[in-house]
Amino acid sequence: MVISIIGVGLLGGSFALSLREKYPNIKFVGVDNSSVNQKIALAKGIVDDIVSLEEALAISELNVLATPVDAITGLMPHLLDIIPAGRTLMDLGSTKELICKIADAHPKREQFVAVHPMAGTENSGPGAAFKELLTYKNVIICDKEKSHPDSLGLVETFLFDVGMKIHYMKPVEHDLHLAYVSHLSHISSFALGLTVLDKEQDEKAIFDMASTGFSSTVRLAKSSPQMWAPIFDQNKINVSKALGDYIELLKKFKDAIDKEDLKTSLNFMSRANDIGRVLAGIEKK
Amino acid sequence: MVISIIGVGLLGGSFALSLREKYPNIKFVGVDNSSVNQKIALAKGIVDDIVSLEEALAISELNVLATPVDAITGLMPHLLDIIPAGRTLMDLGSTKELICKIADAHPKREQFVAVHPMAGTENSGPGAAFKELLTYKNVIICDKEKSHPDSLGLVETFLFDVGMKIHYMKPVEHDLHLAYVSHLSHISSFALGLTVLDKEQDEKAIFDMASTGFSSTVRLAKSSPQMWAPIFDQNKINVSKALGDYIELLKKFKDAIDKEDLKTSLNFMSRANDIGRVLAGIEKK
Repeated sequence: MVISIIGVGLLGGSFALSLREKYPNIKFVGVDNSSVNQKIALAKGIVDDIVSLEEALAISELNVLATPVDAITGLMPHLLDIIPAGRTLMDLGSTKELICKIADAHPKREQFVAVHPMAGTENSGPGAAFKELLTYKNVIICDKEKSHPDSLGLVETFLFDVGMKIHYMKPVEHDLHLAYVSHLSHISSFALGLTVLDKEQDEKAIFDMASTGFSSTVRLAKSSPQMWAPIFDQNKINVSKALGDYIELLKKFKDAIDKEDLKTSLNFMSRANDIGRVLAGIEKK
Repeated sequence: MVISIIGVGLLGGSFALSLREKYPNIKFVGVDNSSVNQKIALAKGIVDDIVSLEEALAISELNVLATPVDAITGLMPHLLDIIPAGRTLMDLGSTKELICKIADAHPKREQFVAVHPMAGTENSGPGAAFKELLTYKNVIICDKEKSHPDSLGLVETFLFDVGMKIHYMKPVEHDLHLAYVSHLSHISSFALGLTVLDKEQDEKAIFDMASTGFSSTVRLAKSSPQMWAPIFDQNKINVSKALGDYIELLKKFKDAIDKEDLKTSLNFMSRANDIGRVLAGIEKK
C-alpha cells in the first residue's frame, strides 16, 4: 500500500511517523512545494519519496491532505477530479464548513473523509513533526455518512491505530465550537504577545520579569501566520462572534478594575476558575 | 536562627522548603490564619511550629511576609511597629508601589526589604508548595538603597541560596512592567476561560475539542481570585492601561477578520511571532 502526505508539515508529518511505526510495509510519498520541507521530510524518514501531486493521486490508496486550509479548499476539486475510483482522500484541516461544502459539490464526494485532529503545537513544518503528537488526542470526523463506508473505515482504522479518540460532528457544529475552544485562544495569545512587544521596547524587561505563567499564556503566539490567517478567514463569522464575546468580557473586567469593584473582579475570576474542573475532566457537579 | 513565614502558601512555603535544604539548622515558624494551611504546613515540614504574628516577630531574625498583597499592605505598619531592632522584614508581593510607599512612611523603613520573585503556578496554598519553585527564576528587589545593608545582605544571600537571579528596580518601574508581562496575561486567561464556559454549556464539547494549546493558554484561569483581585486593584492604573491596549489590538484584529483583510491579519501574527525569540531567552535561563 502507498499513502501520500500532501503537505509534509507538523501534522501530516506526525501522522506519517506514527503510522510508519505500526505499518512498516506501507510506502509513504510526500508532496510539498517547499524544497526545504521535501529535504527535511526525506531526511527525517517521514516519507520514502517526493512525488508530484498527480503521481501521488495515481499511486496512493490513501491521500492525506495536510496543507493550510486555504490550500485544502483550493486543491480539493482538482484532487477529486483526478482521484482513481476506490481510493480515498482525507484532509486534516482546522475548519470544516467550507471544506465540506466544496466536497459536497463534487460528484466523487464519497471518496472524501473530512477529518480534524485536535492536536498541534506552536511549531510548524516537518522538522517539528514527532510520532507521539496524535497519541491520546481527540479527532473529529464530519459528515461521516457522506463518505463511502470503505473510505470511512480505512480512515477510522488509521486514526485508531495512531491512538486517537474519534468523535463525529456536523461541520457547522464543528466550526462553531472550534471558534471558542481553539481559534479564540490563538487570537488571545497572538494579541497578548503583540501588546507586550509593542510596550516593552527593551526586551530585557520581558526577560527579567516574565514568569512561566506568561510564557505558557503566550506560547500560541509563536504559531504559523500562514496556517492561521486562512483558518480565521474561513471561520470568520464564528471567530468574530467569539472574539466579540471575549472583548465584551474584557471590557467588563476593565470596568470593574477602574471602579475598584473587587466584588465583581472576584466573581469574574471565581467563575473562570471552573475551567480547572473542566480541564481536569471532572464530572459536572 | 529563626525565620518566620507569614502566610504559608505556595510562595512562602516553597521559599521555606528550599531554604531548609540549605540550612538544616534554621528553625522555621509559620503564621497563618487558616487552620488547614497550618496543618498542611506542619505536615509537609514547611515549618517547625505555628506561632502568633507577635511571637513570630519577637523571635525571628528574618520575617517573610508572603500573604496576598492586600494583607501585606494591611499588616506592614503593625509589623514594623513591633519588629525588634536589627531584625529584618521582607515581603514577596506581586505589586511594589503601594507596598513601598507604606514602608517609606514608617520610621523603621530600613529594616524592610521589598522583594518580588517571578515565580508561581496556577495553584495556591501550602499543599502546592515545592522546593524547586524558585530555582533559576528571576527576583526583583525594589528601592534597595532604602534597606539597611545588613537586612539587604541577609535577604540577598537567602535569595541567591535558593537559586534566584536578583534584579534591582524602582517600584514604579516594577509595577508598570508587571502589568504587561504578568497581570495582563492572567486577565487574558481568566477572560478566555470564562468566555468559553459561558458559551459551551455542554462541557463535553470542550472536553472533546480542546487541544493542548487551549489548556496552556487558559492555565492561569485556575489562579486564586483572592490573590489576584488585590493585585489588580493595587496596580489598577497600569493594569487598566495594559488591558486597554490589549482590547484595542483585539478590536483591530477582529476588524481585519470581519473585512477579510488577510494582509493585516498576517502582519499582526507575524509581528506577534517575535515573542518566540523573547520566550527562547526566558526558557533558556
